[in-house]
Amino acid sequence: MSTTFFTPVQDGIKEVEQLMRAQAGNDHHPDLRAALEHLLSAGGKRVRPTIVFLAGNMFDAPHEKLVTLGAAVEMLHTATLVHDDLIDGSLLRRGIPTLNARWSPAATVLTGDFLFGRAAKLAAEADYLPLMKLFAETLTVIVNGELTQMFAAKGIIERKNYYNRIYAKTASLFEMSALAATMIGTENETVRLSMKVYGYEIGMAFQIMDDVLDFTGEQATVGKPVGSDLLNGLVTLPAIYFAESHPDNNEVKLLAEGGWGNTEKMEQLVKSIQSSKAIGHATDEASEHIDKALDAIKPFHESAEYEALVGLAHYIVERTF
Amino acid sequence: MSTTFFTPVQDGIKEVEQLMRAQAGNDHHPDLRAALEHLLSAGGKRVRPTIVFLAGNMFDAPHEKLVTLGAAVEMLHTATLVHDDLIDGSLLRRGIPTLNARWSPAATVLTGDFLFGRAAKLAAEADYLPLMKLFAETLTVIVNGELTQMFAAKGIIERKNYYNRIYAKTASLFEMSALAATMIGTENETVRLSMKVYGYEIGMAFQIMDDVLDFTGEQATVGKPVGSDLLNGLVTLPAIYFAESHPDNNEVKLLAEGGWGNTEKMEQLVKSIQSSKAIGHATDEASEHIDKALDAIKPFHESAEYEALVGLAHYIVERTF
Repeated sequence: MSTTFFTPVQDGIKEVEQLMRAQAGNDHHPDLRAALEHLLSAGGKRVRPTIVFLAGNMFDAPHEKLVTLGAAVEMLHTATLVHDDLIDGSLLRRGIPTLNARWSPAATVLTGDFLFGRAAKLAAEADYLPLMKLFAETLTVIVNGELTQMFAAKGIIERKNYYNRIYAKTASLFEMSALAATMIGTENETVRLSMKVYGYEIGMAFQIMDDVLDFTGEQATVGKPVGSDLLNGLVTLPAIYFAESHPDNNEVKLLAEGGWGNTEKMEQLVKSIQSSKAIGHATDEASEHIDKALDAIKPFHESAEYEALVGLAHYIVERTF
Repeated sequence: MSTTFFTPVQDGIKEVEQLMRAQAGNDHHPDLRAALEHLLSAGGKRVRPTIVFLAGNMFDAPHEKLVTLGAAVEMLHTATLVHDDLIDGSLLRRGIPTLNARWSPAATVLTGDFLFGRAAKLAAEADYLPLMKLFAETLTVIVNGELTQMFAAKGIIERKNYYNRIYAKTASLFEMSALAATMIGTENETVRLSMKVYGYEIGMAFQIMDDVLDFTGEQATVGKPVGSDLLNGLVTLPAIYFAESHPDNNEVKLLAEGGWGNTEKMEQLVKSIQSSKAIGHATDEASEHIDKALDAIKPFHESAEYEALVGLAHYIVERTF
């Protein structure tokens, strides 16, 4: 697997991280700075800022605006993770203690809020109102998705529910990253739409692969126990495929009747899914999204960034963590 | 006490409330709509949108933009209240159950986040980037203030700490409301600064009077137990004045040594403060802020909105809830 597409944007990513660090400011509370430092050092792959640079560079968007947008997008992502981890009671993310593992719920809520504020400020500093509206709309899509997931009964085996959820959770921000960076560079609506589709499709693929890795990944690299989604009542695409092709399986029937809380049975179901064709089917579906993403950017095949965008798309289905 | 200044903006306030209600949308979760409805029906005085209309009308800002800004400001205010009540564990606000009294912490966090997103979207829809930046900056000031208060030791008797806190908590959003509405109407920087000062000063006065009412108000109208700030370790201006003039008072000494958790002694201190000159001194200080606010708007004394702005300023120190 080649990740050379990261190379041309490495310097930009460093600038994004610097700008994110600078958001703590000197006039804010030292504990807040420490928290921000902790969150930033936890790192992550910075996939979203990478999309911003590749898409923006393709249409000659000013570099500084892309740094600002990249920081806004990653800060928004970080803010939602902080509140997510609090809500789920997660103590680890990427193998590093979450904020709520060390801080009170109150401090964690407020730190997330602070990050929202900073993300909004950065988005405003890109000096482009349609981008700001897109940013605010994406925030509400993400939060509405989380609320829907929370209120929904657990253990739901339903494709529509699943697709809505992964769009809100992941694809919406990928889509926004690609679209916003393109909007800075060009007013051509056809081009903007193509890049929006690219972002959407790789975002859907990214989350499907995350959900596949929950079954197939090593705990050490994925950073959470294998099969943890299902054990938490979250039915993802591999489980849906398995249920569709094994309607008479005992554990599938149990799950459909709301029995996701039966850990022993669900662990059995995880094993059945792992050794089934459902994993391959879900991976194929992710690949179909990647194909659509590649179709969308074909018109730009002569651009210097084209190969990098292709590389990023392939990386998303080939990654192992 | 005259509140006739509310009359000319009544219709605008109704439009603001309609726009806020519309933010729940049809594509969002029904429970979220119910929560928003609950929060809106809890009402409040809508002081911030009132400032927006009075300031904006004075400089002929387009009515629709003021409705949008008013809804953005009130939505931001509501979002911070939702997270505040969660953090403080408050079960009542204005005599009505808070969201966290009925919902899980998780749902309350996300509802606050949703309101932040909607507030940001409304602010963006005012179609004016400097306003958007001001909005994002104000959000971070508010949240940073809450974080500072949370991390600070309780029972601190210090003016600087107090003034910083009430600026972040209250005056910053009043200031923003007046400034942003003026910015929509005029590019004159002197005028903008005058209105910013007006908003700041009435905001400081508003919070000082809130803190006075915590000692002097009726529980039924204020909506929380008398003296509740001090019993929670929050030392406000009346207590600071009392401590400064009674350094040898036993309860003051206890408070200074961190003894705010001694409920019996603090209830005694509340009574001492109630019957002392500290209440009058704090009220006088609020009045001084009002004088500064009135000074700031004198240049506009021929405007049709001038008397209403004067009325609003007076109302803030004369109100009893």
